[in-house]
Amino acid sequence: MSEETAEIAVIGLGNAGLPLAAVAAASGIKVMGVDIDVKRCRLINQGVNPIPEEEGLEELIRLHGGEGLMATPRLEDAKFCHTFIVIVPLFVDPSFNPDFTIMENAVRSLGKILKKGDLVVLETTFPPGTTDTKIKAWLEEASGLKLGDFFLAYSPERIMTGYSLSRLREFPKVIGGTNEESGLRAYQIYKKFIPNLHLVSSAKVAEMIKVMEGCYRDVNIALANELFKIAEELGVDFFEAREYANHQYCHIHLPSTGVGGHCIPVYPWFLIKEMERIELFGHCNLLRGSRQVNDEMIHYWAEKILLRCMKIEKPLAEVKICIMGITFRAGVKEFYHSRNLALVRLLMEKGLNAYVYDPLLSKDEVERMGLRCIEPEKADLLFDPFLLRFEIPDGKAAFKGQTP
Amino acid sequence: MSEETAEIAVIGLGNAGLPLAAVAAASGIKVMGVDIDVKRCRLINQGVNPIPEEEGLEELIRLHGGEGLMATPRLEDAKFCHTFIVIVPLFVDPSFNPDFTIMENAVRSLGKILKKGDLVVLETTFPPGTTDTKIKAWLEEASGLKLGDFFLAYSPERIMTGYSLSRLREFPKVIGGTNEESGLRAYQIYKKFIPNLHLVSSAKVAEMIKVMEGCYRDVNIALANELFKIAEELGVDFFEAREYANHQYCHIHLPSTGVGGHCIPVYPWFLIKEMERIELFGHCNLLRGSRQVNDEMIHYWAEKILLRCMKIEKPLAEVKICIMGITFRAGVKEFYHSRNLALVRLLMEKGLNAYVYDPLLSKDEVERMGLRCIEPEKADLLFDPFLLRFEIPDGKAAFKGQTP
Repeated sequence: MSEETAEIAVIGLGNAGLPLAAVAAASGIKVMGVDIDVKRCRLINQGVNPIPEEEGLEELIRLHGGEGLMATPRLEDAKFCHTFIVIVPLFVDPSFNPDFTIMENAVRSLGKILKKGDLVVLETTFPPGTTDTKIKAWLEEASGLKLGDFFLAYSPERIMTGYSLSRLREFPKVIGGTNEESGLRAYQIYKKFIPNLHLVSSAKVAEMIKVMEGCYRDVNIALANELFKIAEELGVDFFEAREYANHQYCHIHLPSTGVGGHCIPVYPWFLIKEMERIELFGHCNLLRGSRQVNDEMIHYWAEKILLRCMKIEKPLAEVKICIMGITFRAGVKEFYHSRNLALVRLLMEKGLNAYVYDPLLSKDEVERMGLRCIEPEKADLLFDPFLLRFEIPDGKAAFKGQTP
Repeated sequence: MSEETAEIAVIGLGNAGLPLAAVAAASGIKVMGVDIDVKRCRLINQGVNPIPEEEGLEELIRLHGGEGLMATPRLEDAKFCHTFIVIVPLFVDPSFNPDFTIMENAVRSLGKILKKGDLVVLETTFPPGTTDTKIKAWLEEASGLKLGDFFLAYSPERIMTGYSLSRLREFPKVIGGTNEESGLRAYQIYKKFIPNLHLVSSAKVAEMIKVMEGCYRDVNIALANELFKIAEELGVDFFEAREYANHQYCHIHLPSTGVGGHCIPVYPWFLIKEMERIELFGHCNLLRGSRQVNDEMIHYWAEKILLRCMKIEKPLAEVKICIMGITFRAGVKEFYHSRNLALVRLLMEKGLNAYVYDPLLSKDEVERMGLRCIEPEKADLLFDPFLLRFEIPDGKAAFKGQTP
């Protein structure tokens, strides 16, 4: 494949962009991937998968990397493409307002190479309305073109690291345009590599769909956490009750130390901030309350850990507490808004003797975060934040007759 | 069947008790049904179904009423039974505290005829812990027996008027004892007429299961209501977004005027009140917040109705507003905590010209509630509270060029 024959450009080859680019390439489409990470581009072009935890991706990169899927750090290399898919990150600032810096740079740069008749599709999860307003304005300003000269649509990524390929190939995916023709054109292109695709009436509806899903998850995790706390007070085994409460009309989620990662804890804020902006503070009480329930779970677990420490025959400040994982979810080496990491820090702030054991991390990596490592068998109390399970290592002294 | 050969007594032949009694009778068990409503008992004994909206019940009552299923207003007629299923209502007072008056009377009366070796199973939805504490104490006091002399278990009804028979025959049902032997005995009896039965570890777990289900529904309806309000503000069609947001991992419910009936709006209070009692106010923020979101939806809809009225070419106080249904749910003539009834009253309190059209109710029945009837075609604005749909009757004048 040469630059001139590339059909689709995928801008952003991260955990969401690369699987999408690979699936498109596997459908026989010539894809030019663009990413600022030069090393990542080189790996892809050599047929080496840079996301080992993504099942099935290795084979696709080996088959198509450097062939049907070329990667480049230079956006200009994609200038012959007619479809541009933008899938770069959108972060939030410490007050959970979206920070569009990366997005604006990427979109304005894209505007500079945009040609008449080109199609731009955004995949990054947005506050509803973003594609029709900010994205459109940035593209028009940078390109000198008007919507209609180019086409603009939105199709939210629904990937989940580890399951992204099956998500792209089996899961329903939605796409909507900023105008009718944009929607239709985007649908026709995407249909070539996304089997379960649905055209919705607008980009804004497609944006809302993705955010609503996140809100459903966040609120239902908060509900599970609240019911878990209540069940504990009542002396009821939450997990037994949940098993039989759930059926085709009831889907009580699992309790946790809270919700981390770039998605679920962030998306509700998109709606909360927008309602607050228009002074409808009461329109988001449930979303705001759920965020609070989830984020405060680390205080609940810190208290539980303290009470367990009381059963150990040592002064409290000497009890070695080991948190068995600090990533935001099990098996994925990511820390954004990780409640497990926040839990360790909270315990340390309280002056407790908190350590970390995380098989995904080296001693160095843990220490660079200002934390301390311990071998589980050397700790006095283990807490697995993924399974919410306490354990006292063999041979360690709990008070007589007590279990952890 | 004679009194002496009756095996199971079902105390309370209401919307939950009668289907259960009928299903047990249809399994060949001789059932003595007890209900204070003499007329209802007479109908049942004549083979006439008193709950016409319950699909399939008519046939069962015709086949078994007065035969395998006898009904009596006298509890003493059930004294030869060895299993007593109690399924009488538990109401809440205006502050949502459970009012055990009816339950205590029924259980104490039962205690007086209780014999050694008898089994008592409660089906009414309870605050978790009720069977082990209140019910046990009342039975022991009234009978002079101790638990162990008799057996006590709990199996929450999961009926839904209109679908109760299929619920009993297909849906998973749980049962748990106040002690192990009670659970096992109750399981063996129930297994004879409930195919999809699960023994759980205690009565309290079984109680919690039912309440958790109700909380799941209430919180998820509140979430749908909140997302609906936000979508309206954003100019997004909620129903379109919901259709594509929902998939195997996402179950966004339908928005509404709130939640009525004896079940869903009541059960969260069982947990809220208990957490408040032990001063854990923060343990039920989400449940309390969801109740608030749902109960306040009538204010949201009253405002929407007002804004629609502005489009009608008449002084506001003269616009005839017709609410197309005041029962708590469509097709069921029940009013407890009906938000649609509350909505009509709210509009009237505001001085608006609100009327009712409800095909389930006569003019007299509506007027006895202090409301006024209207034929839909004579109103200026119709609001269907079940479909959340506005309409202006044909020939009525909206302002030029406006739609409702």
